[in-house]
Amino acid sequence: MMFVSLLAISSAVSARTSPNLVITTADVDSMRKAITVDGQFKDTFIANKASIDQQISEKITVPVPADGGGGYTHERHKKNYKLMYDAGIAFQLTQDDHYANFVRDMLLTYAELYPKLPLHPKRKMGKQNPGKLFWQSLNEAVWLVHTSQAYDLILSSLSSDEKAKIENGLFRPMVKFLSVDSPETFNKVHNHGTWTTAAVGMTGYVLGEPEWVEQALYGLDKSGTGGFLRQLDELFSPQGYYNEGPYYQRYALMPFVTFAKAIQTNQPERNIFQYRDGIVLKAIDTTIQLSYNQLFFPINDAIKDKGIDTIELVNGVAIAYGLTGDAGLLDIAQQQDQILLTGDGLKVAQALDKNLEQPYHFKSIAFGDGNDGKQGALVIMRQNVAGEQAVLFKPAAQGLGHGHFDKLTWQFYDKGEEIVSDYGAARFLNVEAKYGGRYLPENQTWAKQTIAHNTVVVDEETHFNANVEEGNANHPELLFFEKNGNVTISSARIDSAYDGVSLVRTMALINLPIQPNTEKTQSFVVDVFDVQSKAAHQYDLPVHYKGHLISTNFQLDTQLTSLSVLGKDNGYQHLWLKAQAQPKAGLSQITWLNENGRFYTNSSIMDGDSKVIFTQLGANDPLFNLRNENAFISRKAAAKNHTFVSVLEPHGEYNPSKEFTVSAVSKIETLSHQNNNNIDVVELGVTGGKRYLLAFNTAQSLKGNQVNNFEFNGTKYDFNGRFKLFEIKK
Amino acid sequence: MMFVSLLAISSAVSARTSPNLVITTADVDSMRKAITVDGQFKDTFIANKASIDQQISEKITVPVPADGGGGYTHERHKKNYKLMYDAGIAFQLTQDDHYANFVRDMLLTYAELYPKLPLHPKRKMGKQNPGKLFWQSLNEAVWLVHTSQAYDLILSSLSSDEKAKIENGLFRPMVKFLSVDSPETFNKVHNHGTWTTAAVGMTGYVLGEPEWVEQALYGLDKSGTGGFLRQLDELFSPQGYYNEGPYYQRYALMPFVTFAKAIQTNQPERNIFQYRDGIVLKAIDTTIQLSYNQLFFPINDAIKDKGIDTIELVNGVAIAYGLTGDAGLLDIAQQQDQILLTGDGLKVAQALDKNLEQPYHFKSIAFGDGNDGKQGALVIMRQNVAGEQAVLFKPAAQGLGHGHFDKLTWQFYDKGEEIVSDYGAARFLNVEAKYGGRYLPENQTWAKQTIAHNTVVVDEETHFNANVEEGNANHPELLFFEKNGNVTISSARIDSAYDGVSLVRTMALINLPIQPNTEKTQSFVVDVFDVQSKAAHQYDLPVHYKGHLISTNFQLDTQLTSLSVLGKDNGYQHLWLKAQAQPKAGLSQITWLNENGRFYTNSSIMDGDSKVIFTQLGANDPLFNLRNENAFISRKAAAKNHTFVSVLEPHGEYNPSKEFTVSAVSKIETLSHQNNNNIDVVELGVTGGKRYLLAFNTAQSLKGNQVNNFEFNGTKYDFNGRFKLFEIKK
Repeated sequence: MMFVSLLAISSAVSARTSPNLVITTADVDSMRKAITVDGQFKDTFIANKASIDQQISEKITVPVPADGGGGYTHERHKKNYKLMYDAGIAFQLTQDDHYANFVRDMLLTYAELYPKLPLHPKRKMGKQNPGKLFWQSLNEAVWLVHTSQAYDLILSSLSSDEKAKIENGLFRPMVKFLSVDSPETFNKVHNHGTWTTAAVGMTGYVLGEPEWVEQALYGLDKSGTGGFLRQLDELFSPQGYYNEGPYYQRYALMPFVTFAKAIQTNQPERNIFQYRDGIVLKAIDTTIQLSYNQLFFPINDAIKDKGIDTIELVNGVAIAYGLTGDAGLLDIAQQQDQILLTGDGLKVAQALDKNLEQPYHFKSIAFGDGNDGKQGALVIMRQNVAGEQAVLFKPAAQGLGHGHFDKLTWQFYDKGEEIVSDYGAARFLNVEAKYGGRYLPENQTWAKQTIAHNTVVVDEETHFNANVEEGNANHPELLFFEKNGNVTISSARIDSAYDGVSLVRTMALINLPIQPNTEKTQSFVVDVFDVQSKAAHQYDLPVHYKGHLISTNFQLDTQLTSLSVLGKDNGYQHLWLKAQAQPKAGLSQITWLNENGRFYTNSSIMDGDSKVIFTQLGANDPLFNLRNENAFISRKAAAKNHTFVSVLEPHGEYNPSKEFTVSAVSKIETLSHQNNNNIDVVELGVTGGKRYLLAFNTAQSLKGNQVNNFEFNGTKYDFNGRFKLFEIKK
Repeated sequence: MMFVSLLAISSAVSARTSPNLVITTADVDSMRKAITVDGQFKDTFIANKASIDQQISEKITVPVPADGGGGYTHERHKKNYKLMYDAGIAFQLTQDDHYANFVRDMLLTYAELYPKLPLHPKRKMGKQNPGKLFWQSLNEAVWLVHTSQAYDLILSSLSSDEKAKIENGLFRPMVKFLSVDSPETFNKVHNHGTWTTAAVGMTGYVLGEPEWVEQALYGLDKSGTGGFLRQLDELFSPQGYYNEGPYYQRYALMPFVTFAKAIQTNQPERNIFQYRDGIVLKAIDTTIQLSYNQLFFPINDAIKDKGIDTIELVNGVAIAYGLTGDAGLLDIAQQQDQILLTGDGLKVAQALDKNLEQPYHFKSIAFGDGNDGKQGALVIMRQNVAGEQAVLFKPAAQGLGHGHFDKLTWQFYDKGEEIVSDYGAARFLNVEAKYGGRYLPENQTWAKQTIAHNTVVVDEETHFNANVEEGNANHPELLFFEKNGNVTISSARIDSAYDGVSLVRTMALINLPIQPNTEKTQSFVVDVFDVQSKAAHQYDLPVHYKGHLISTNFQLDTQLTSLSVLGKDNGYQHLWLKAQAQPKAGLSQITWLNENGRFYTNSSIMDGDSKVIFTQLGANDPLFNLRNENAFISRKAAAKNHTFVSVLEPHGEYNPSKEFTVSAVSKIETLSHQNNNNIDVVELGVTGGKRYLLAFNTAQSLKGNQVNNFEFNGTKYDFNGRFKLFEIKK
């Protein structure tokens, strides 16, 4: 250990190889060759160079920090780090001193300014750790992650005197400010800590300060209770799931992959990409898996437009491809349509030029939540029946401050579109007129509330009474996740979301050959939601559907000339009551048409006492902040125990362009449910006469190969383990 | 004349060349060669052949007519004509008798059935002329247009006996039924008449019956008061505009181009494509011009998903390209992405294989309405400023039974999307659960009403009191349509939409270099709507906007906990009143964000007395038939004369994927308007200090180069003709 450190110091004192962080001298050799031959890499270089040439022709502007996020000085300092990084790349590729001199001059300007700076005037004490260039130190760390790379890229062009000025005026004071002067952030096992340790560690490599690297990896006191490795241990589940969800996962990814790459370059003996069974690569892959049709599943506080083309994942995919050569990653890179001017970016570009990409394989998988992977799970089920289907089922943990109170919710996607949807975050990112571009007040009053999701609401109250700490302290239990050729099925329970109420939900994505003489199958999503309590409650189960309501097989009592609000609080105050109905006992069906041209029918078993309520979002919304989305809510007004059973069925096609409409009507003719001794049996009968039984066992513990027996319509059936699908022969 | 007819008869008695309608023997020679070499034509042939092979392997099914539109026998007879046509093509290309025999056997089956058929059981007397195979004779004519071609394609394979059976059992009785037995439809100068004359004329060519051709061209009595040529004279404007609008224009196009092509093949001496200065080709081109981003402008009863890839226009473009070789048409053909297995289809396919396409040029143009082109106009203005803009301005005639009461309405399109929109038709085409797939009742109660459009509503009443005859009898007057490099401008008036109220609207699509030191321009749409009456009225001007409301520069009084309906009738009964405001006198601004990521600000001059009302569609809609679209309405409650002045401005970008938002705020700082002596002057002042004046003269008659004088802020200005844009120097 001592020996390695000494070596590192001595090599730093002697001439350091430059560049040697994310990009190496070997990379630079290949990149210089690549820009002489036609291909995507050269195209990208030419476009970037034109943009840089234009920008560096302008005067260097390093303003005294004054503005908060989005303001002029904030944006200018952000631009500056990008520009220095890009100019550094251009210097390495062209060997034109012009670019290096630009970076040098800007760094010297910063080195003049930085030592004189007090804490940022727009800092918010107590909430976020303050920076000097920026209002929060997080931005300062991001700045340093990029600027340390820019410095590394031009190091060979600098005189000793210039290096001394820059390092003493800028890098050393900034590292000190971010590390020893801000121990709470530096040691924090949290995304802000990751940016900070990455910034300090990377600067340590460039300046030849192995002590900084050690601190970055193991915490200020080098005990391992904080630092980058601890963050890798704690912030991801064993499968690489980050518990705030994919929207924040892709953001968190950036410092992990960047610093890991720099560690790999400088200290390959650390085997950082093998750390914790390859957690960094798993985190990259999991981020991809958590997308549908290029967009991330919008659980928790998520802006729905974010997808796999985000720059963080472009970096992640390039680095992962550089390490693994996995041709499936090229499929993703192709969809990202963005080439990085790095060594790994070159490998991706060359492989794409040669059309080496193979289809990336999206899987059905249960991502265990929490650092031990045992705090519930985020379940993704997929199949491909005339377009890709995905069910997201969420018996996951709370996900900290950005988590929503949506235990056991689900979403459904088909043929490229959201069908049963989640609102995501209520926010117009950076739109000043909309609450300064921050999370809107409606994010709290609507988007986080339970009724905004597709899960049971008890007595119009929100899970954990909307208390984040309580949410973080409790999580659902994944009972099982299993699959075979026709069925992917998962079940989970939680008893802590509401006092004295246990919630058990089982969801299955299945495909069945319901039509005679064809191998074509039909998709169904089966949903059995069992609620049990010793006291009577009101149970609401909403379906937030995307599309235009086509028909119901029961009569609607629609509000024609006035609308009133559905409830008082917990999100209900935002819902207009548009129509209600009390379907008679038996099969109740609601059909809508999505903009993808396909029909969707929700078939439910009604008891003759439950209501269906049709709502539109938008009440108590004085500034038109909310999208006016639609839902229907199955309501059981007063019951101790209740089981909601429903099946969602994609069908047919509406094609007004070609002027045809086919199969606009559901094929489900019968639907029944029974539960005996933890064994649920759902009967599904379709047009043409085929009948199926889906049987499953939701007991909390089950012997490996337990035999389950049940009787249905006088016939005896049995199955081993958790579930079985039966076709009933006539 | 006599000589030509005699010749035709004698050639028919002798062996007829086959095929010789839309496809000729020369075409067939080229097509047979083409399927031996790689290219789009061969690919299409292989795909088609596979589909036909599968279909003709099944039993021939010619059911006794029983069902109405959409029902089994209706759809089966439609399928049969397509199948016979496709099999006929396959026979010509492969020379495999198998295909000809299939067509022959099906035709013989029809020849057995047809003579025994009574009028169709589902006929609707009085409304539509009944058919025998179909409930209306229109479908019978469409069937014959296709089947006569199928017959022509296999003629060479038939024995005299087979021909006699088919002609005597099927074609002769059907022609008789459609012509001499149905004189009203046959002679009608209407789209139904076009299908019928085309069917009879094409069958006449195939069976060698020149008399039928003469009747098809000149009417049953050959006087020229009816027939195909009269239809070409009456149904289109001189520029080729069909007055029901583009949705019906593309449907009407099919028999025109098909029969014209058959005439050209059989009697080139008629110069049918030169008829009326080339009206058929003009009609094809106009249909293309009436689209934006591949979709037709949805005026009148229009299904919004219909666009240039419709089969009618695929035919039209192929035939037009065959005649003209215009490389711009290939651009459209490429977007249509559909190759026809005809001689013209082959020309298109080969040209596309060679990448000969050139950008199709979409123009700013005023299409005069009516057969003389003087019954108002449909005005399209286009420019390309960071994405294509289009203004549709509609001082057009009523457009018969499918016309909407929307005189002087407008629509705006930008960056691929609808921004200020028209509802189109209220209809879910062929969706049985939605009113049998027909026009919904809400088409009458909402979609056709004036308030459903972006034009002035007087006293909450609809133009012409929603009386179609009155609408057809009156039309707006186009005052002018002019353009220069920065400005496209048009003005129109109508005094007959409301008793005693004159409406004059001027719209301009302009682009201005408002920013210093850049050639980039900014788009604006200027709208000056002047209403004059001797009596006091309420004037409403709605803007049906597409997107999410971002901000207003005035305070909103929003309905928080209950919504009420805005009015009682004429479409107002379908509007929820969501919010209202009474902005103070001066500049009033409303900004929304479209899904194309761009912001749009409507800036208006308010008088301190007018209100702005925000609405959502959906009241009095018991079955959820309406889309819940949004509008704001400027309301002047009681005035004799009032001028609505507003400017629409696209700006900025919302990019949540890349996490940036730019220029979310309007650049307009001042807006004023004055009118003296028919000269309107709109002043526009923008951020950065530039000031512009748009001056125009809306007098009903104007001397060619009249000099107009006006004074603005103490300075004198003058201009010649209709309009001028001034930049005010400071």
